[in-house]
Amino acid sequence: MAILLTNDDGIFAPGLAALHRELRRQGEVQVVAPESEQSAVGHAISLMTPLRVKKVALDGGLTAWAVSGTPADCVKIALAELLPEPPELVVSGINLGPNVGINVLYSGTVSAATEAAILGVRGLAVSLNTYKDADWATAASLAGELISRLRDLRAWTPEVCLNVNLPALPRERLRGVKVTRQDTGPLVERFQRRVDPREHVYYWLAEINERVSLEPDTDYGALAAGYISITPIHHDLTHYPSMESLKDLDRQ
Amino acid sequence: MAILLTNDDGIFAPGLAALHRELRRQGEVQVVAPESEQSAVGHAISLMTPLRVKKVALDGGLTAWAVSGTPADCVKIALAELLPEPPELVVSGINLGPNVGINVLYSGTVSAATEAAILGVRGLAVSLNTYKDADWATAASLAGELISRLRDLRAWTPEVCLNVNLPALPRERLRGVKVTRQDTGPLVERFQRRVDPREHVYYWLAEINERVSLEPDTDYGALAAGYISITPIHHDLTHYPSMESLKDLDRQ
Repeated sequence: MAILLTNDDGIFAPGLAALHRELRRQGEVQVVAPESEQSAVGHAISLMTPLRVKKVALDGGLTAWAVSGTPADCVKIALAELLPEPPELVVSGINLGPNVGINVLYSGTVSAATEAAILGVRGLAVSLNTYKDADWATAASLAGELISRLRDLRAWTPEVCLNVNLPALPRERLRGVKVTRQDTGPLVERFQRRVDPREHVYYWLAEINERVSLEPDTDYGALAAGYISITPIHHDLTHYPSMESLKDLDRQ
Repeated sequence: MAILLTNDDGIFAPGLAALHRELRRQGEVQVVAPESEQSAVGHAISLMTPLRVKKVALDGGLTAWAVSGTPADCVKIALAELLPEPPELVVSGINLGPNVGINVLYSGTVSAATEAAILGVRGLAVSLNTYKDADWATAASLAGELISRLRDLRAWTPEVCLNVNLPALPRERLRGVKVTRQDTGPLVERFQRRVDPREHVYYWLAEINERVSLEPDTDYGALAAGYISITPIHHDLTHYPSMESLKDLDRQ
């Protein structure tokens, strides 16, 4: 059984290449990834435009499929059209930058793993907590070890995908692994208003990191404290407590 | 306190216009919507491109803001930059076509309501269960009545948004309102492979509706049975039961 590898940074991203080198030790790896960067696409899929697929050569002479779509598109078309049989596991990453807290909802990396779960295959997203000078070799080696442990874990059922975030720390400073919940603390954002050379106004979304207290049982908190964070994620968005409190609405 | 109205079909969509006419009876309505259709964008936000905002005239001489982004972008920039104060309520719709089951994850309409909840404002998505010959006047009138009831409902807290789906039925055939859970039954999809005039292969995603049994307590089932479906939705994707079953991972 093969592993399907994808990402949202695009098929030529170094995080994908590093994870590819690592996962090849564990079995056959098929790469189906977006032809260009797809960050913050969330769980977008392509309905208004068709998908084009082309074979590309990756580092080491391996062939991979580049798809003109989103990470979720890649998982869908890989399972439906490109792979000879369903993979054992879908791995998405390694993403440049963390995917924790509310940002999980915007993450293309995580959406690929969620899409795998929707289609009945174990899915796992891996992100690295830095935006620059990433040590991909260390991150991929940590991810490879973790994936090897997780593959044997019966408690991991396919309808739940795992959102893994790695601290950008040397091995000796890692504090271990924590199973966490998604932080739901509010985003602190603003827009930067600018004027272009033709005197038209435009806006950039900018995040301000002002969080002071972080809860240690969350993805955000565990990562900040130097732990590898593993959050089980599901695709049933129902808020069950509210079903009870809203039930009076049923009475016309 | 104003109502913010948005959608994913674009600012000139008839479903938005109909809902606008209806909601104006309930208070001040501000429209901030995508300048073009954004279906299936999921919870995408714009990080790689800036947003442009332009004032447009809607039916009835009212001005509205057209945004070069996704529904979630519209809610973010409306609250951060465009509205003088936070709205009481964010309404997204009326969408042409239902947003039930797994498709909730791909829905731009629902993501606008989720974004409102993330930012601490009550959010509500409205979709109509047809892709053609929509009776927008009836749908908007039903949505208006429901929104009027919901505004007074203390049990509806801002961290939960509501995903409303309306049957495309005349009033006399409606069976009432049901508070539902999101259906999680599998998607049945395939890709149509085609060849373009330059002999390049491309693929269209196509859904096959093969569902036979529908559970009546789900969004999908209630809508099919002729009920208005209201699903409380939240943005904490953690699968809590798995946190317990995966906790052995914490031991290194």
